[in-house]
Order: sequence, then structure tokens, then C-alpha cells
Amino acid sequence: MMNIETNSFTVHTKGNNDIIDITGQVQQLINETGFTEGSALIFAGGSTAGITTIEFEPGLRKDYPKFWEKIIPSNISYHHDETWHDGNGHSHIRASLQGSSFAVPFKDKNLLLGTWQQIILLDFDNRSRTREIIVQLTGIKS
Amino acid sequence: MMNIETNSFTVHTKGNNDIIDITGQVQQLINETGFTEGSALIFAGGSTAGITTIEFEPGLRKDYPKFWEKIIPSNISYHHDETWHDGNGHSHIRASLQGSSFAVPFKDKNLLLGTWQQIILLDFDNRSRTREIIVQLTGIKS
Amino acid sequence: MMNIETNSFTVHTKGNNDIIDITGQVQQLINETGFTEGSALIFAGGSTAGITTIEFEPGLRKDYPKFWEKIIPSNISYHHDETWHDGNGHSHIRASLQGSSFAVPFKDKNLLLGTWQQIILLDFDNRSRTREIIVQLTGIKS
Repeated sequence: MMNIETNSFTVHTKGNNDIIDITGQVQQLINETGFTEGSALIFAGGSTAGITTIEFEPGLRKDYPKFWEKIIPSNISYHHDETWHDGNGHSHIRASLQGSSFAVPFKDKNLLLGTWQQIILLDFDNRSRTREIIVQLTGIKS
Repeated sequence: MMNIETNSFTVHTKGNNDIIDITGQVQQLINETGFTEGSALIFAGGSTAGITTIEFEPGLRKDYPKFWEKIIPSNISYHHDETWHDGNGHSHIRASLQGSSFAVPFKDKNLLLGTWQQIILLDFDNRSRTREIIVQLTGIKS
Repeated sequence: MMNIETNSFTVHTKGNNDIIDITGQVQQLINETGFTEGSALIFAGGSTAGITTIEFEPGLRKDYPKFWEKIIPSNISYHHDETWHDGNGHSHIRASLQGSSFAVPFKDKNLLLGTWQQIILLDFDNRSRTREIIVQLTGIKS
């Protein structure tokens, strides 16, 4: 029998391209709700955060922010900041490119991720934030 | 009771990195179909358009096209154009990177977007286009 | 009646930004399973591959890898490689940016792609790989 449930959890970030592994929280929601097969739609409400996967290890946690700083620098001028003066024009552009929505399939109650693949929240904003991450589960319950 | 419905609407664009806010049309389809909880899969058929979210304000509407022009310039040579001579090699590369598919969850009949977060169509093509945007709703009806 | 099925198929790649058209395999799974309307969630398990769409023609198959090499070069130093010495730091960053998850709607048993739009696997790793591509179909069976 197909079912849908929309849940969320809160993540505290440091901003400034902070990378948070949220795989455990997503898997826990699958465990708690009793879904056995389906997909988890993971969504960051807001316009300065992104969701993707990465091998969550110390080297890449330095490399990925370095890439973002190179491609969309924080220290150049953005039209967004001329109007709003919050200094986070780069955060918005990074988030639009990365995307705030990401879906992961699961089966037999387990996320179908690779061994070295974790789901991450990227907080591109230029300050600490408390983020609500939405996880919508669609699928079959046992 | 779970249900699925595939709808679409038409958008006229100027091309050349035109950014169109389509949040209203997606929300309207939720209202009209009577879905209360689920997800909207928004899909741009074609290989020169993308879908994402952004804070839809005048500054970022300049910043984001400027970023695309910097990272994937329109005035350099592409192998695509050597064959097809339509001059839109950059449009294709931008679209493949941005992605033409985007899913947004909704609950209590409302898209779960942040306050300053709108769903946008990016038309990367080098001319005006009429785009059919597919919106597939999956979820529960009241 | 809504249903869900999780399938997979195997793809052999050359790595090094190899681009593989997987549209046929996804469409075949729709044909074989009998789904008429729904979505195909296509997922590459692993942290060095991505999924998106492109016009799968010889020009762009050169242009897109060239773009990746420019934006995330393979010949610069990554912290990832200092630790793991597998020389594929760039592969990981490319995959996190592209994204390993992509959903395509279908109706009347057909993927709702544009005429010149194919679903592709990008293998960013620096060697040949055998990839398992997960295709989770959610929707209605006739």
C-alpha cells in the first residue's frame, strides 16, 4: 500500500560553506516511519542552501568549499548586495547552481547509497543558521 | 489515497538566460487538482533549459546570468556549433549543468518553499522560445 | 492503482568523463514493468558519477568534458588525493556538483523528454568502472 509522509529535522550550521552529513537523520526517519521501499525527497527551504551527495571525508570537506570560492567568489561585487547589503550574493548564486532538492531511493528499509556516498547539506550563507530540512517519504510500508 | 496527475503549462521566454518565476503556476495546479500533500516534479522538456530555485529579485536576476556568461561563455567556440551552426553550444552545456528536473514537496496544499525562495525556469537558448513545463503531482487528495 | 518498483541495470564505462546515453535502458524498464504514468528516479550509487540530460551528439560529447576539465581541472592538487592517493579528487567534486540523482516523468508509457534530450550517465572517475544504475519507478500500472 502506497503512502506519503512529510517530516523534517533541524540542523545547526556555521554557514560559510559548512558541509553537514545528514545521512543518519534521513535513514532514521525511514526506520521510525516503517517505510520499506520508496524514495526520500530531501529539501532545504530557503535560497542559500543546497543538497547533494559526497564522500564525507576531511580532504573533500576542504576541496569542495575551495571550489565554490574559486567559481563564485565571496569577495567580488554582486547586484544582490547593492540592494540588500547583507553581503551574501555569492551564497544565493551557489545555492541556485547546487540545487536545494535531492531524492534518494531506498529498499528493504535502507537508502541505496554507495559505500562512500553521504547525503549533505551545504550552508552557503555568510553566517550561522538553523536550517529545517524537509524529508518527504513516498513508498510502501510493511 | 495516493494519486498521480501529469499536467503542463506554457511559458514564453526571451531566451538568452531569461529567468521566469513559475511558482504561481505550480501552486495553481496544486489548488486546481485538489492534492493536499505530495510532491511536484517540475520538468523542462528540451536540452537548453533548466529548473531551480532562487530569491527572485532584480539583483540576482542580473547576477545569475552574469555568472553563467563567465563560467560558460557564449562567445567562445563549441564543437556543437561546428556541426549544427545554431550558435547555442553554450546553452546546451549550461542546461546540462543546471539540470532540467526539480522536485518540490507540498503539504496542506502549499509548496514548502522558503519565504524568499521561488521556482524558476532558466531559458539558456539564444532566441525566444515557447516552453512547455511539465508538472507531475504525486500524493494524496483530500 | 499506485505502485513502486526498484530496478537496476549495469553500465560499463571508460571513466575520465565518459558520457553514456542510458535513455533506452530506462524506457525499456518502463515497457517491461507495465507502468503507464509516473516518474523514473534514476540514481547512481557512488561518489564519482552524475546523471543529467543532454542532446547526445558528437559535438557536445566533446564540449561537456572540456567544460569539466576547465572548471574542475584534473591536474591540480586536491586535499582528497593527499590522503587517499587515488588521484580522483576532481572526480568527486565534479560528481557532487552535477548530482547523482535525476527524475524524469513519463505518461502513456513514454518518457516525457524533448526530441533532442537524452538521459546520460557521466562517469567522472579516473578509470574504467562498472556502474549499477538504480531506476525506481513510481506511478500507475494499466
